[in-house]
Order: sequence, then structure tokens, then C-alpha cells
Amino acid sequence: QGILERLDAGEIVIGDGGFVFALEKRGYVKAGPWTPEATVEHPEAVRQLHREFLRAGSNVLQTFTFYASEDKLENRGNYVAEKISCQKVNEAACDIAREVANEGDALVAGGVSQTPSYLSCKDKAEVKAAFRKQLDVFMKKNVDFLIAEYFEHVEEAVWAVEVLKESGKPVAATMCIGPEGDMHGVPPGQCAVQLVKAGASIVGVNCHFDPDTSLETVKLMKEGLQAAKLKAHLMSQPLAFHTPDCGKQGFIDLPEFPFGLEPRIVTRWDIQKYARKAYDLGIRYIGGCCGFEPYHVRAIAEELGPERGFLPEASGKHGSWGDSLSMHTKPWVRARARKDYWENLKPASGRPYCPSMSKPDGWGVTKGARELMQQKEATSEQQLKELFQKRK
Amino acid sequence: QGILERLDAGEIVIGDGGFVFALEKRGYVKAGPWTPEATVEHPEAVRQLHREFLRAGSNVLQTFTFYASEDKLENRGNYVAEKISCQKVNEAACDIAREVANEGDALVAGGVSQTPSYLSCKDKAEVKAAFRKQLDVFMKKNVDFLIAEYFEHVEEAVWAVEVLKESGKPVAATMCIGPEGDMHGVPPGQCAVQLVKAGASIVGVNCHFDPDTSLETVKLMKEGLQAAKLKAHLMSQPLAFHTPDCGKQGFIDLPEFPFGLEPRIVTRWDIQKYARKAYDLGIRYIGGCCGFEPYHVRAIAEELGPERGFLPEASGKHGSWGDSLSMHTKPWVRARARKDYWENLKPASGRPYCPSMSKPDGWGVTKGARELMQQKEATSEQQLKELFQKRK
Amino acid sequence: QGILERLDAGEIVIGDGGFVFALEKRGYVKAGPWTPEATVEHPEAVRQLHREFLRAGSNVLQTFTFYASEDKLENRGNYVAEKISCQKVNEAACDIAREVANEGDALVAGGVSQTPSYLSCKDKAEVKAAFRKQLDVFMKKNVDFLIAEYFEHVEEAVWAVEVLKESGKPVAATMCIGPEGDMHGVPPGQCAVQLVKAGASIVGVNCHFDPDTSLETVKLMKEGLQAAKLKAHLMSQPLAFHTPDCGKQGFIDLPEFPFGLEPRIVTRWDIQKYARKAYDLGIRYIGGCCGFEPYHVRAIAEELGPERGFLPEASGKHGSWGDSLSMHTKPWVRARARKDYWENLKPASGRPYCPSMSKPDGWGVTKGARELMQQKEATSEQQLKELFQKRK
Amino acid sequence: QGILERLDAGEIVIGDGGFVFALEKRGYVKAGPWTPEATVEHPEAVRQLHREFLRAGSNVLQTFTFYASEDKLENRGNYVAEKISCQKVNEAACDIAREVANEGDALVAGGVSQTPSYLSCKDKAEVKAAFRKQLDVFMKKNVDFLIAEYFEHVEEAVWAVEVLKESGKPVAATMCIGPEGDMHGVPPGQCAVQLVKAGASIVGVNCHFDPDTSLETVKLMKEGLQAAKLKAHLMSQPLAFHTPDCGKQGFIDLPEFPFGLEPRIVTRWDIQKYARKAYDLGIRYIGGCCGFEPYHVRAIAEELGPERGFLPEASGKHGSWGDSLSMHTKPWVRARARKDYWENLKPASGRPYCPSMSKPDGWGVTKGARELMQQKEATSEQQLKELFQKRK
Repeated sequence: QGILERLDAGEIVIGDGGFVFALEKRGYVKAGPWTPEATVEHPEAVRQLHREFLRAGSNVLQTFTFYASEDKLENRGNYVAEKISCQKVNEAACDIAREVANEGDALVAGGVSQTPSYLSCKDKAEVKAAFRKQLDVFMKKNVDFLIAEYFEHVEEAVWAVEVLKESGKPVAATMCIGPEGDMHGVPPGQCAVQLVKAGASIVGVNCHFDPDTSLETVKLMKEGLQAAKLKAHLMSQPLAFHTPDCGKQGFIDLPEFPFGLEPRIVTRWDIQKYARKAYDLGIRYIGGCCGFEPYHVRAIAEELGPERGFLPEASGKHGSWGDSLSMHTKPWVRARARKDYWENLKPASGRPYCPSMSKPDGWGVTKGARELMQQKEATSEQQLKELFQKRK
Repeated sequence: QGILERLDAGEIVIGDGGFVFALEKRGYVKAGPWTPEATVEHPEAVRQLHREFLRAGSNVLQTFTFYASEDKLENRGNYVAEKISCQKVNEAACDIAREVANEGDALVAGGVSQTPSYLSCKDKAEVKAAFRKQLDVFMKKNVDFLIAEYFEHVEEAVWAVEVLKESGKPVAATMCIGPEGDMHGVPPGQCAVQLVKAGASIVGVNCHFDPDTSLETVKLMKEGLQAAKLKAHLMSQPLAFHTPDCGKQGFIDLPEFPFGLEPRIVTRWDIQKYARKAYDLGIRYIGGCCGFEPYHVRAIAEELGPERGFLPEASGKHGSWGDSLSMHTKPWVRARARKDYWENLKPASGRPYCPSMSKPDGWGVTKGARELMQQKEATSEQQLKELFQKRK
Repeated sequence: QGILERLDAGEIVIGDGGFVFALEKRGYVKAGPWTPEATVEHPEAVRQLHREFLRAGSNVLQTFTFYASEDKLENRGNYVAEKISCQKVNEAACDIAREVANEGDALVAGGVSQTPSYLSCKDKAEVKAAFRKQLDVFMKKNVDFLIAEYFEHVEEAVWAVEVLKESGKPVAATMCIGPEGDMHGVPPGQCAVQLVKAGASIVGVNCHFDPDTSLETVKLMKEGLQAAKLKAHLMSQPLAFHTPDCGKQGFIDLPEFPFGLEPRIVTRWDIQKYARKAYDLGIRYIGGCCGFEPYHVRAIAEELGPERGFLPEASGKHGSWGDSLSMHTKPWVRARARKDYWENLKPASGRPYCPSMSKPDGWGVTKGARELMQQKEATSEQQLKELFQKRK
Repeated sequence: QGILERLDAGEIVIGDGGFVFALEKRGYVKAGPWTPEATVEHPEAVRQLHREFLRAGSNVLQTFTFYASEDKLENRGNYVAEKISCQKVNEAACDIAREVANEGDALVAGGVSQTPSYLSCKDKAEVKAAFRKQLDVFMKKNVDFLIAEYFEHVEEAVWAVEVLKESGKPVAATMCIGPEGDMHGVPPGQCAVQLVKAGASIVGVNCHFDPDTSLETVKLMKEGLQAAKLKAHLMSQPLAFHTPDCGKQGFIDLPEFPFGLEPRIVTRWDIQKYARKAYDLGIRYIGGCCGFEPYHVRAIAEELGPERGFLPEASGKHGSWGDSLSMHTKPWVRARARKDYWENLKPASGRPYCPSMSKPDGWGVTKGARELMQQKEATSEQQLKELFQKRK
């Protein structure tokens, strides 16, 4: 059954977690460029992560094609052996995802994300051409549906949806925005309306903000759609980091991004609360993004186990709500094998010199950069950099 | 070259990280029993984790045989298919470790750890028999050397070392203790002396405490050995969690153990400081235990890169001290591509309702349980549980 | 010059600080009832606190008549010698304030606050009679103007203003509400409009919330008045405690109220920021409430010294921005005699077991109690208590 | 009855609190020089603070003669009208203290503290002459006993005790040191021995460290005296700030000193725990220093009420353990009128951007300055400053 059949039937669809952060920690992705050449260089590592998400309950395996547009791989990926073409990266990603999906009954979704071409103010045709190149691979490899994700500007997201719709396959679209809206100031409700009008059947948010903030944003999208009398399924794939203190650009603003985020990592219990809240809000495609490890996905599947009537395979190695601790050696740990213990715990950081919140840095710079891009004063990355230097 | 040749030559030997915590999050180990039947059930997952540690710079791959003594697997592992014998688990662990070690030039170490037999006051012969059963497998599979690790009582650790020494192979021994010493109150210096006298060539600590506390303990061991005019190599494999606030039994005392430890996870920069401090203290076998992910091991290898003259394979996907961020999209993130930024960052927790430290719970209970075990009043787990229930 | 002449001329008027909290710590007011019988029992203590505020820069000395309505003194003050009548308390308060005001050029303001009569649902006539009894004293003692303060319900505040206006003297009115509005849900803007229509020339907030939250509320009042095309001077007298985490009823909701608020006390530098922000918002009557000590008032006067052209007497014992530290014994303390040091300091709490925010307790109870009062189900304190007990 | 009669009889003697910090906030003392010319300039303010401590339970009123040696007043006090001589300041201090002491049955103690002469390496005769000048006033005014307090170097403290002993009156001596000992490294036990040998009948610590740390130090003093078979009464007058994170020189090292210490202020409940712990340790002269407000002294008197058989006057305005809250308006505040609520509360800071501990700054400088003084390289304040500048 396809993604829309499942959602239309009222099923809960569980997404997967975050590849770039997980594989960075495992040693296969470089923070900074964040490109996915590992699909060619180390397929076994990508395959293993897919498999862990599948076992944790994911119903969708997204091809590891984040930032795999040609312009991005060229610009950023020049530390990678030249022979790894954009096409090869995307093809390998499709093959691996399909191989693992077949170990269960998951769907494969081909994904595209924001491009350097758009940021450097290339025109619509050029940006669309970049998406089309990836889409060609997805069609050749016959993925089950398509996702346009991690867009900061609704304009670019709409272009992506328009391209993906040419395929005739179902399209989902998620933006990496918070309640304040996209980088040009378009509010979430309006973003959702534009995406649905462009052809997306599923809309929502991914990345950049923590579960609570992301659900606020999806709620605004839902209200926007209702006001416009449009129908679409809702989707959320937030960070697995607490980010109550970041600005409009999300966790990228936080001084801890990306190498000091550890104390912000959410627990499995935080995720169970998120899954319940997302469900109550009417969201039926529930997954995660950066920071989401397999055990976070498992927590979604366990929280919604009663509604779905089954638990994921990985729950064979996990007692719900700490249940397995009844087999621990120490009596006082065995005493923690109960829901109310974990539900109410406020975990300490063990870091007496650290505050609970940061003042996001770079906020002024963000505003400056955004203005420049809006005013089309900066027509290339280089130019933006120069202008930025001058302003300092 | 063997482990002792390397250490005797003054080389730095990098250990690996924590299997049970990493594989619990990946969906292959059950928290509570923490047994390693995954070596048989899901060898590909164990193999992949070994490989990540190898790529991150580990010079030793420990067989995933933690808690793999027959008595432990029987007691705790009854949720596992009956046909997985202790021998099969240990054999598979050796095979996987060797297979991956051969992908590089790492050594394979066979490991034994504390047994339920000792805790339930079985006699010396019986406890030694449990270790000998594992040793038989290690000899058959011809591991390079042996590690007795995660012992709370030096008495049991000495028995383990005595058994392992029968093999003629080099033996390392680490205890999961802090500066206060073992559970019977034997101070670290004295523990080290006993272990070396029993035949250990390498001594130190693993698990239960954070890097800083663990190094304090190794320092006490070093002083004990010096006072006794004994020679041995030093080794440390601490937690990757901040635990300044725990009691004698380490992180198991903390209310966050084991499912709410996220805010305590150390950053790669914390690990670089640890590696430097360990090196300066004269420790040359430097690794990690629970919470240590591949990127933490890579941080050891990067910090000690100048001393060793090379970087690990995984550093191909990691710029030292945030260097790779110079390729990030946002200008204010590119500005973080420098050592002093990450060295001085005090990361926020993003959790305004959480304190920086916990008062360890179960401290009273710990003391009660310890007394019972010392007084041999509790001669079995069941009896201990009953006595504990009665006391409440 | 009167209060309105000063404000109409664009002058900044500095209010005083919090009497009940300061005198509780000094030993003259009982927390719980919070009644001001000290004016009769220990006039020297009240006089000294007035004098400190005067020296710190206060242009207005409020009579210490908080909770000095007859019904309140009777209900709550029965631990006080019977012979201290409501009239005596109010008269002594006026005499002391005037005596100290004459030591400088401050104005004396007679103040009334919320009454038990209103809370126990007495009718308008009865509530107004309580205010009138206090007003009689204020007229006899010829105070310079009148303040209706610390009202949770705009209805009662309007009644108070109506009574005070009978005197022909200028009337200021401040409510102890936050951005969510009064206890019946009337938003701040609407509260301000009602108060001005009832005759208040100055409106704003006092108590219950921290400086930042209070300024948000005054901003809403300002916008409400502008929308209604009404003119009035703005006034703010917030807490000197940080309360980002409290509910609609302000700091009374916080679990730390009233005996554990110490870690929330604002610094003099926090107050300088508040004074600047209040000034920029157009507020010209700037003072404080509970927690405000003389040095906090001095900080307002120092921050706005450039605008006012002079510093208060107490600044003779205070170097602006830490300047006097240049005379400290230790060189590294002398190095702190500069603005940017104190402006940017984020002070540590020295309390590693405490979180940065509390979850306000009693929130459910608050809601319950509020509903009961709204529904007039509870027509007396006793009845409210019984209903509350029953609900638990 | 004199101080020694009381202590010899086993009575608990309650000291007073901190004058310089309290009067700085009230507007009468300048932070930096911290000199007590307010005794002449504003006797009513000093008198009122004495009175508040008396009412709170103080059995001893110390003359406000901190830093009132002639050399200090000259060096630092040049912003004060020239005509206020050292003698006048000390005389007024004695008169005010006696006047208030007579309102109850308190004793008056004349106090001397460390001198600039010692710090700038003047010889013994010169330093002693400074103390003798103050002592002359104390004898003329006939104080009840004498206190040498706030000494960082035991050498200077011994000189002070020797001078004070010339009077024939009982002498108490307290140093502002922590468990690490004095600035020349003399450990607390040895300091105590030297002070008793010099003639002090009462020894202990005051200022610089929080209650917990101060009690640790007094414990070391007690052990030192026992080892030397010397007898003396014990005394503690710590800060009312939490300082778990400061170095050898106490809170002066903390970056928050002196204008950002608010979040560290201890609650009355912290003080009750301190009073109990001090009592259990055998200390019978229990008071406070900087940060101690009258309500903190009251908390000592209330905690030890059962032992003493009476409560102080100010307890008429304070219900023990929150008892008076039973008269509060809000039901959920009334519910806090109980001991276990306040005893267990961990108060939040309301400051999400602040950490729980600071890294003391200036530590390196401290060490540098100390070395210079020890080596007598710096023979004057000016010279020290120059050397310090050069080193930077």
C-alpha cells in the first residue's frame, strides 16, 4: 500500500530519524558540508542505519540524498574523490534504501532539499533543473513517493514540489521553519497553503526546531489550511534537541551548533510525549530529523503502540517505560522499572558551569544575511561573504 | 606487535568505546540484563560498531562478551532463544572482532566481567570456573590478549586475573571503582597492587565514573603501585557522561541511570581534554566505556595525533577542532571553525526545569545491599531481593 | 510641584520600593497577613526605610498603608494588640511619610489596595466604604495625591478610583496583573481604559511580575489607551525578582513564594536595564514593589541620571557601574570597576541542585479558586476554603 | 554576665550580621573602600541596623568599626570629609552600639580587622600601633569584650590579639579563611593554636566563605586545638552567600563579587540548617557576616529556640517554618505553612541564562599578588600595583 492509501485509511505512518548527525558521529559524514557521498563510499554504514530505523518502527525509509543536488556536491564536496558523480550518489542511496525496505514492509521515499543555486539567487529554471536531475534517478529506481524537505524559503519549496509532481507520484513537503515562518517572513499557514496548491499531499516541518516548537508550527499550518479550506495530511520530523532559546533560523543559531549539542539531546521519554502530542494534534506522519537516533524512533512506535496494535521489532530489546530494568543487578535500579519514575524525571546535566539556555549568537548576522538575499544584493555565496565581511 | 610490545615501546594504545549503551540505542541490547546475545542474533550490527571504532582509531577491539558468563546468560538471558549457548555467544564475538580487526591492524582482546556467582556468594572455585569457560573460547579463537574488566570487588577481579593468566597471554585488569575504592572499601592503590601481584600487566579503571573522576582513581592506583615498587602499564576507559554528583557506586546511583542520561553526555571537546590529561598522567592505554560513541574515540585519536604522528581513518570525515565548518552554508557557523570557540564553549542544556546536579538516590539502599552481601546474609539474588523488600 | 505638574512637564518621577518584603526581613511585618501595624508599633523602622528610599532618589513616598483597610486589619491582624485601630495605622503612616518627605522634596501619596470585602463578594457599597475610611485619613493628613494599587480585578480597582476621585486629588491606579490580564480575564488594555474612564490620571502595574513581564503589560495598556484615544501617564512598579516561569497570578504561584525567592532577586544592573527600557517605552513614573530595596531605587536614579541631570544623595556612597571598586584592596577586584564587566555578567547561583525555573504549583488550584469567585459560589473566605478542601 | 561567663555556662551566644553589605544596599557605605564613616555621618541608619539585629536575637552587638583603623580611613576614605577622624568614627560606633545594647541585654564588642599597614609590609610595631589606637577608644568607651576579625594572615591576627589582650578584656579572634588555611598557607588548625596561644579565648572564622565551607574550617580548627591540647570556645560568622565554587580567597575571587551576588543569597532555611550544624559541631558563638540580614540572624535564634528556651522579639512577626502563611489570602499559599515544604524546597533562580557555578576569576592574579607580598618584593600598595601591571 502506498503512502496516501495508508494515510487516507487513518493509519499512523512513522518516519525515520536523522542521517547526517548519526553518520557524522559514526564517522561517515563531514559536518559543515553534510553531503551524503557515504552511499557510495561506505554503503554498509548507510545500510546499517536504515536497518536500525526499520527495526525501530520506521514505515518510510528516506533515500540518503540530503544535499545531494549536483550544485551542492560540486560546491561543497570537492574533498570527495572526483569520480563520485551526483548520479552515483543518488542511485546508490536508492538501492540501499530499497534493499533494507524489502527486509520489512517499508516504503522508500526519494528526497530533495534546498540548493545552493537558490541561495545564490539563480533563476527558477536553473533551480528546477537541479531538482529534476535528482528526480530522474528516483524515477529510474522507482521510489514509492517523494519528499521535498529542509526548505527555508517557501518559494524554493514550491519549485521543488512542482518538479516532483511532474512524476505523478505522491509528494510530501516539509520546511525547516518555526512559528515565525520562512526566511522571507511568510507565515507557516501561508507556506502550507502554497505547498498544497503546488501539489503536495502531505505538508509539515522538519529539522531546525525541537519537538514542541515544531508542533506549534504544524498547528499554524493546519489552521492556515483550514482557513483556506484545503486538505492535506500533516507531517512532523523535528530535531531531537531541546531548543527553546533559538531564533528564527533554529538550532543553527545556537552557539552549541553543531558540536556542543549533547546536553540538549532529548530522552526517549521526551519523544513519547512528543508522539502523543503530535497524534492528538492530528498529525499522522510522525518522524524525526537531526539528533533522532533509532531509539527515538522506537519511542514513537512504543507510545503509539496501543493505537497501532503492534510494537516494532526493536522493542524485543526494550521494555516499555523502563520495564526491562526489573532484570537489573541492583535493587534500587530495579525500583525504576515503572512509568511514573521516567515520566516525571527532570534529568540533571552534571555540568555545574553551564546555563540552561544560551543567547543565540549570530542573530544580527542572520538578519543581515537575510536582508542581503532578499534584496538580491548578493547574487553569489562569495558576494554574500564579502558583503558580510564589510558589514562587520 | 602485541599489546605489551606496543606499550613497552611507549606507544599510545587507543581502546574502543561502549557496546551495551550504543547497541541499546541501536536496538540490539536490552537495558537491565545488558547481555550480548546480539553477537549471534545480529552479527552485522556488532560488526558495524566494531568497524566504526576501528575507523575512529581504536587499536584494540574487545570481543563483545560483556556479561557473557554462563551464569549471567542463564539468569538474565531467559528472554533469549534457549539455543543460544554461552559458548556460541562468546565464539561469535571472537569471530566478529577478528574479522573487523583484520580490516586494519587492531588487536583483539577477550574480555570477562563480574559474575552473578560472585554476587550471590558462590565460592572461589565456582566463580573461577565461570571465567575459565569463557577463557576456553578465547584460547580456541586465539585472541591477542585478555581483559578482566568491570569488577566492583577486587577479590573477584583477582580471581579473574588468576584464571586469565593460566593462558600465558598478557592480561589487563580494570575495575569500575572511584577514588573511594571497591565495594568492600579497598582503596584504589591497594586494588592495583593486588591486581599486579595476581599477574596483570596493565591496570586501571573502566565504566561507572566520568573521565575526571576516573583519572583521579587511576592516579591513586599509580601512587599505590609506586609505593609498592611495582610496575604496570596504566589504562582508563571511563564513561562518556558527566557524573560529578554520584556516590561510591558511580552512575548507577544517579536517578538518571540508564534512560535519562542524555544531558550528561560529554562532547568531543570534553574528550580531547580527557585524552590530554590521561596522557599527561602517564596513561598509555586510553579508551572509553558506556556512552563512548565512535566520535568520542576519534576525539582521543585527534587530540593525541601530534604524539602519534597520524590521524585515524574517520578523521577524513572530521576537521579537527571544527575545521570542516569553514564549508558550512551560514557565515556565522563558518565563524566557528576554530579551536578556541569549541574549547571554551560551555554548552547550555536547553532544559530550564532541570538542575545541574542530582542528589543520587538509592544511596541508603546501596549501603544496605552492600552490607548484606558483605555479611553473606544474602546468598542469592532472590534472597537479597526479599531482604531488600523487607527493609523498605 | 504636584505629581501631575511634574509628569505633564515631562519629568521622570521615581517611585519607592517594597515595604512589606523589606520590613519582613528587618523584623517588623508578618508574612502571610502582610499588614502594616508597624507604623504604630515601630515608627522608627518605617521612618528609616522611607528615608533610605528618599536618599536613593524616590520622588514619591507612599504611605505604608498597604492592606490597611479595616476589614483586612480585622480579619488578619488579630495577632496585633486590639487597640491599634485602622485609623491609627493610617494616620501614623501619613505622619511618618510626611516627616521624611520634608527631609527632601518628595511628594506623599496615600495608598489603598485590594480588600477582603471584595474577595468575599461584598457589594459595591461595602467595598467602597472600606476605601472611604482610608481616604478620610488621607484627606485629614493632606497627602499630595492618591494611589490605588495591587488590584487583581479591574472592577474593584475602578471602585477604588471612583472613591479616591471624590477627593479632588490626582489619582494613580496600578494593577498587579500580567499580559494575560486581570483575574476575570479582562485584558490589560481594557483595564487601563476602564481605570482612566473612572478618573485615574496615571495607570500601570505594580507587584506580581518581574520587570520584563511588567513592561510588556504596561505596553499593552498603552496600546489599549491609544486605540481608545485616551490619554494618561504610565507607571510601573514591578517586583525585584525574576519570574519568567509564573502563571497568571504572578509570583504567588511560584513554589518559592515568599520564603525561598532569594536566588531570583534582581541585581542593580538588571534594574538599570529595566529603567532604560521603561523610559524608552514612554513610562515616566518608574518605581518598584516587593523585593525592591533602596539600592534598586538608586539604580533607577543612576541609569536615568543623564536625562534628569542629577544623581540622588545615596550615590555619594555608590560609584556608577562599579566605579568605587577602583578603591578595593585586591587588584583583580579593582579590575571590575567598569561598566562592561557588570553589564554582561551572568551571575551564577552557587546552587548546583537547583533548576533555573520552577513549574508553578497551585496552578490547578488557582484556576479552581478563580472560577469559584467568578461564579460567586463562594461568598466568603470560609466557604471558599471549604469548597477548596472538598475539591482536593 | 560577660561573654566568657555565658559561654562557660554552656549558653548559646548569637552574633550579629553583616554591616557593610547591608548598609551598602541601604545607601550608607561605599563598596570598594567599605569604610564605616556612617557612624558619624548617619548614626540613625547604623542604630536602626543594630536594633534590627538585637530584635532578631543577637546577644552581641559589634561596634561598626570594620576597616576603621587610621591607615585604612586615610588611604581609602579620602572621599569622606576630612574632619571625620579615626577617633570620631570609633567613638560614635561605640556609643551607638551601647545605646542599642541597652534596649535589650546584649553585650558590646569592640572590633578590629586587617590593616593596609600589614599588607604593605609595615613592621610589627607600626601595625600594632594601628590596633592600639582603636583599642584606646574601646577602653575609654568601656566595651564588654574585643574581637579581632577578618584576618587573612595569622601573623597579623596574632599581633592584633596581643594588642587587644593588653586591655585585660576577653578576646575573640576569627579569620576569613577556608579549609586551605591562611594566605601564607598556614592550615586552620595551626592558626587556631597560634591565636589561642596569643591570648584568644574564642576562635573561629568569619566572612569569605559560605556556611558549609566555614563550618569545615572551624572543624579543622577544633581538631588542631584538640591535638595541641588547648581549650577555647568556637565561633563562626560566615557569609550568607553560597560559594561552593570559590578559591582560597573566598567570595572575593568570584566574578559576582560584590555587585552580582544576589542569586547566591541563602534563604532563612539554609541558615536554620547552618545553625543546627554549627551547634552539633560544638560551636556556641554563632553569627554571620556579609550578606547576613536581620532575618538570617532570626533564623539562627528560631532554630536554636528549643535549646535556648525562648524566641527573639522579632519572632513576634515571624511564624517558625512558614507558620504565618496560614493567614495568607490564597489557599495554595496557605498550604505552604509547614516545615517539610520549606525544608525540602530547592529554589529556582528564574535566570535561564545563568549557570549554577562560576569559575572564579583572578585566581592567577591572586597567586601572583600573594607571592609578591610573601617575598616582600612589594613593599607598598603602589609598588604591588606596578608589579601587577607589569606582569599582565
